[in-house]
Amino acid sequence: MDSINIKKLAKELNLSTSTISRAFRGSSDINKATKERVLSAAYELNYEPNHYASNLREQKSNTIAVIVPEIANNFFSQAINGIERVAREKGYHILIYLTYDDFEKEISFINNLHSGRVDGIIMSVSGEANNHDYLNKLKKKKIPLVFFDRVYEDIDTAKVTSNDYESSFSATEHLINNGCKNIAYLVVNKSHSIGKMRMRGYTDALAAHQISYRDDLIIDCSNDLEQTQEILKQVFNDLKPDGIFASVERLAIATYQVCQDQNIRIPEDIKIISFSSLEIAALLNPSLSTITQPALEMGIEAAKLLFKAINSGDEQMVTDQVVCKSQIIGRKSSASK
Amino acid sequence: MDSINIKKLAKELNLSTSTISRAFRGSSDINKATKERVLSAAYELNYEPNHYASNLREQKSNTIAVIVPEIANNFFSQAINGIERVAREKGYHILIYLTYDDFEKEISFINNLHSGRVDGIIMSVSGEANNHDYLNKLKKKKIPLVFFDRVYEDIDTAKVTSNDYESSFSATEHLINNGCKNIAYLVVNKSHSIGKMRMRGYTDALAAHQISYRDDLIIDCSNDLEQTQEILKQVFNDLKPDGIFASVERLAIATYQVCQDQNIRIPEDIKIISFSSLEIAALLNPSLSTITQPALEMGIEAAKLLFKAINSGDEQMVTDQVVCKSQIIGRKSSASK
Repeated sequence: MDSINIKKLAKELNLSTSTISRAFRGSSDINKATKERVLSAAYELNYEPNHYASNLREQKSNTIAVIVPEIANNFFSQAINGIERVAREKGYHILIYLTYDDFEKEISFINNLHSGRVDGIIMSVSGEANNHDYLNKLKKKKIPLVFFDRVYEDIDTAKVTSNDYESSFSATEHLINNGCKNIAYLVVNKSHSIGKMRMRGYTDALAAHQISYRDDLIIDCSNDLEQTQEILKQVFNDLKPDGIFASVERLAIATYQVCQDQNIRIPEDIKIISFSSLEIAALLNPSLSTITQPALEMGIEAAKLLFKAINSGDEQMVTDQVVCKSQIIGRKSSASK
Repeated sequence: MDSINIKKLAKELNLSTSTISRAFRGSSDINKATKERVLSAAYELNYEPNHYASNLREQKSNTIAVIVPEIANNFFSQAINGIERVAREKGYHILIYLTYDDFEKEISFINNLHSGRVDGIIMSVSGEANNHDYLNKLKKKKIPLVFFDRVYEDIDTAKVTSNDYESSFSATEHLINNGCKNIAYLVVNKSHSIGKMRMRGYTDALAAHQISYRDDLIIDCSNDLEQTQEILKQVFNDLKPDGIFASVERLAIATYQVCQDQNIRIPEDIKIISFSSLEIAALLNPSLSTITQPALEMGIEAAKLLFKAINSGDEQMVTDQVVCKSQIIGRKSSASK
């Protein structure tokens, strides 16, 4: 939101703040032309009319926006619960926007939010386009922005991520230690910040164990379940990997379904570990080994940073970088024979 | 939103619509006092200043609100995907509001939405308070409202539900046919519209099979997982039910966890069926028998009704009642020995 407040409006119009107040209250001791001058200026300067009465002083909407790629994913729904918990304590509402990984939607949402509908934005980004000008405009409008999980490296703002490189390295090592030699890496979008980091952890772990990297074992999957299942069937048939590192939860689910379908035994024929915040990983058949991000904690941290920025005033943006630790939980799906 | 449009504004100010348009565009051929009169009136009449330019004619926000109790639940995330699919086709954005079953939050959201921030609302209600005046106000403001899944019976608006009574009757019968005699009914909130319908299906199925209803087998659980687990441990220990009908997905999860913990075998010691939209029900150990609501379809139907209402104009509200059919899928968790 532009940092318009009653003082600036008064200055702009060369009126006293009390005159401005009276114009808004509709006092009878103010003449019609002056009242019209004030309300007209308020309109032009984007005062939110409906919020004016209750938020006259601060020009706060008491709302924050949370922009995420999807919610049918336990990581995001848990992170949102964390954000909501902090927001609730602060007397704030949250509004959730879904990009479905559509970069155009992200731009459109952000452009809508320039108007000051919200006091701040927490976002897990949709893609990797090069031009992020629409985000820089937020700075000019003094609307704080916090990234979580998926970030744009070139935007200088607060970020909450998890130790994707280290945990991917360890997860790959876990599969190697349990006997895997041909480990397929399943990914949806390699160009995401987290896609890159996770893949680097995987390749470095292979190198550290003198296993040569094979390009054909990097499997580009899709957000569409059936499409991914087709891809995996082909891969299992042609390449016969003995290990699967799923960089996204839904790819582990697809793997289970294909294995069930094709009578491939987990973990005897193929071992699997996956990034996942699935609360019922332990109830799957067999129980799923996971790299579990602290989703709730990441949401809480992101919200705390946002409120730090909101409360720090207009001139100071918060650029803290918080890195949370994921936990590697070995279960039956990756057990050695 | 008040059905203020450029014509009404012109009439109100005794100006031509073209003068109004020019005032908003900031044309140079309009005098300052007239411009101020127009913008001042716009401010007072709650024109959304930021949306004005692009939506001058229709006064549409091109946004709909979706109010749900939670998103960490596959039913709601799938329904939202359905709503989004329709909204996207219409060029609309959706904004998601989470009530966390908090009635006060619901009221606060609705009151915020009176201002015309959105063109319509799709809601699964939070509770069963008696006074729903805050919803009646939407009608006056001509903001269409569609309920889905959880509804308030006393509000005369469009509703999309599933055949909760019939499917609960059939699910209970399924357990009886597979040998269960002491079937516990797990519920979080008995006063919800769906809570009532599902329980009636359960009790009527018992009666139809000459099994007497036992009040102690109606188990009030909680949204808190640990609390529910404690309650279930007690119940399993004291009442030794041989069947579980979980009216909400998370209660089935809690049941699995307690059974795993207490070495109670599913389905040998206890059979279970649950309302659930869990996509991986078949991958659980053992696979979970479900009453699966057509979540995606319900979202699509709700969105279609909302757009029907939005497009029908101000004076006509849509009050269609759509009932979708759930599917009962027997898997290992309820199999007879």
